[in-house]
Amino acid sequence: MEVYLDNNATTMIDPKVLDEMMPFLTEKYGNPNSLHKYGSATHPKMVEAIDHLYTGIGAADEDDIIITSNATEANNWVLKSIWIDKILNGDKKHIITSEVEHPAITATCKFLETMGVEVSYLEVNEEGVLDPQTLRDALRDDTALVSIMWANNETGKIFPIKEIADICKEAGVLFHSDATQAIGKVKVDVKEIGVDMISFSAHKFHGPKGVGALYIRGGVSLTPCFHGGEQMGGKRAGTVDVASMVGMGKAMQLATNPMAIAYEVNHVGMLRNRLEAAILEIPDTIVIGGTENRTPNTTLISFRGVEGESMLWDLNRAGIAASTGSACASEDLEANPVMNAFGSDSELAHTGVRFSLSRFNTIEQIDYAIEQVKKAVERLRGISSSYAYSPKNHVSGLGAH
Amino acid sequence: MEVYLDNNATTMIDPKVLDEMMPFLTEKYGNPNSLHKYGSATHPKMVEAIDHLYTGIGAADEDDIIITSNATEANNWVLKSIWIDKILNGDKKHIITSEVEHPAITATCKFLETMGVEVSYLEVNEEGVLDPQTLRDALRDDTALVSIMWANNETGKIFPIKEIADICKEAGVLFHSDATQAIGKVKVDVKEIGVDMISFSAHKFHGPKGVGALYIRGGVSLTPCFHGGEQMGGKRAGTVDVASMVGMGKAMQLATNPMAIAYEVNHVGMLRNRLEAAILEIPDTIVIGGTENRTPNTTLISFRGVEGESMLWDLNRAGIAASTGSACASEDLEANPVMNAFGSDSELAHTGVRFSLSRFNTIEQIDYAIEQVKKAVERLRGISSSYAYSPKNHVSGLGAH
Repeated sequence: MEVYLDNNATTMIDPKVLDEMMPFLTEKYGNPNSLHKYGSATHPKMVEAIDHLYTGIGAADEDDIIITSNATEANNWVLKSIWIDKILNGDKKHIITSEVEHPAITATCKFLETMGVEVSYLEVNEEGVLDPQTLRDALRDDTALVSIMWANNETGKIFPIKEIADICKEAGVLFHSDATQAIGKVKVDVKEIGVDMISFSAHKFHGPKGVGALYIRGGVSLTPCFHGGEQMGGKRAGTVDVASMVGMGKAMQLATNPMAIAYEVNHVGMLRNRLEAAILEIPDTIVIGGTENRTPNTTLISFRGVEGESMLWDLNRAGIAASTGSACASEDLEANPVMNAFGSDSELAHTGVRFSLSRFNTIEQIDYAIEQVKKAVERLRGISSSYAYSPKNHVSGLGAH
Repeated sequence: MEVYLDNNATTMIDPKVLDEMMPFLTEKYGNPNSLHKYGSATHPKMVEAIDHLYTGIGAADEDDIIITSNATEANNWVLKSIWIDKILNGDKKHIITSEVEHPAITATCKFLETMGVEVSYLEVNEEGVLDPQTLRDALRDDTALVSIMWANNETGKIFPIKEIADICKEAGVLFHSDATQAIGKVKVDVKEIGVDMISFSAHKFHGPKGVGALYIRGGVSLTPCFHGGEQMGGKRAGTVDVASMVGMGKAMQLATNPMAIAYEVNHVGMLRNRLEAAILEIPDTIVIGGTENRTPNTTLISFRGVEGESMLWDLNRAGIAASTGSACASEDLEANPVMNAFGSDSELAHTGVRFSLSRFNTIEQIDYAIEQVKKAVERLRGISSSYAYSPKNHVSGLGAH
């Protein structure tokens, strides 16, 4: 059996999404900016896609949703624009983020530090999320931007995004959130929350790779992402990838309508809980960050005495795809920075395995995965040089067993 | 009959390219950075794609080809990196480009001027290309970059790219070329020319939209395009769009192998010449920029007394897609800047129609287009308020009739 449990890394394209894309990969190949019928033939579905995007995140007519190639581009754009627009001219000096952001945020912040920007990487609490008070304490008069993720890619933990937005609003500081891991998993309503900008990538919610967006609240101004043609209102030049845009619109509709979110919470959440509960019956396992306030599809589990990578190999041989954490960081073999952020136990960072489900998983797949995880843990602990000798409860205070 | 003659705006995806892409839009959806088999299943075709790209442009092993979302992104990256790496720190001050570049270059340069960069927009000669001597005269000690296009998108005129590269090399100045309109139309060999960087977009040579690349000669260092994950050697973070990358590789192979280039020069060139010759039989028509040294697929023709846009509408009704110039600039109705650059006649800028062919055009389509162009000119001149009264030879010295 093949079981794909790495949906936080990327998802399969929903066949309904691909159906919408196909005409634009074949006969409807015109450039949307062309005046002839090959160009105009692309317009109705582009308009529909934009409507799905606005509806999906609760954006208002006066807001902008600018199509980018992914969330990494959108995140880079926000941070570098704030630098150019507000910091390079001496107006402001400071950006606030958290220590558990995706590398697209943290690496960009590290770069901006080399350009003279001051960055605060806020610590998270023992549950792996930001305490609003930590943010309040970090705000300065010269803070230009707060960028805090909506949900964590590794633990699935949901951040107190409404409180963060309120604090930023009160302080008059722009608030951007990387919502890549939230869209389609929980309700993301930009108006309800009062966020100024959010980033997302279609391939995390069963859309195609190579397309994402930046939502920008009406009235917020950013230096263009790419200069050039007048595409995207001059904010992101370059020929629009119609097929991908249409695909992202359809994927958004399928993932964010109220029934879809209910299915995610109830059905996918049930499958995740079934998997998690069975795994936690294995001794010396814990859920990193605890089980409260998470996206319904994600669990990050530490198996004491078992290297995360070794688990992956055993599972891979059994046809099961999981992850030790962010795929974007998996090329380097350093301990996972998100797990390091929990701080209390260096072993934790090497023993975490992330299972991330989707609406395409079945109960049969989950039961098969449970069986294979148990086998792998038994085998790996059997050959472990450290397991028998290490203390029984290797981590405390980090959440549920 | 439907006749698509706007291939400089965008092209149809070659069905062979789409065939290569389909597995990655369906079952092979893994993230290439994932360690499991869904990830590794993407690798062989990605390696093959990269091979096609290196072979297609004559790159060496020590060079980089970084996948971007299009040439606009690549162009923005080059110019903004040079600003960050060499100008912002006070090392250099000056960038040289031409007045007939694509908006992705000129609009980015205009932006950089607001950041204190000094930019020279070199004039082109009466044939619409840069005289090497003009470049020699413009070089300064503080010049950080020369960016000159390989072939013009509107006229198809090929720039003296070898001489330009030699001049830059002698002066010790980096040379970037936007080769978007050259790939697949003429031989582009980066080593033979000695260019430091080139940009291109797959959708201009029968690949998908939403993917392009920046070639960077070994030894040339640029600040990353996007910071984040370790994709593309850390130079352009973000989950790789495997389907598009594989599609671009296949499209490159199909478009740049020696037989393909020969077909482009001989067959597509023959079709273009047949169209052009027939149109030039109509009185008061000229080829803007003349007929020498052009990409084989392009002709930009001025019909005296006929607004370019009016021609487009008549042709569109007859099923023929053409353009008044760059699709990227077609949303604003100002006179075309490339044609304005010829300078001698303001009428010219409003009467140009670009026909750009591809290997998918047939002789039957061309003969039908000739017939329809003749009809349109007759109709439009018949209702023109100016045609009868304007001087017979509205432009002189601009090339062939």
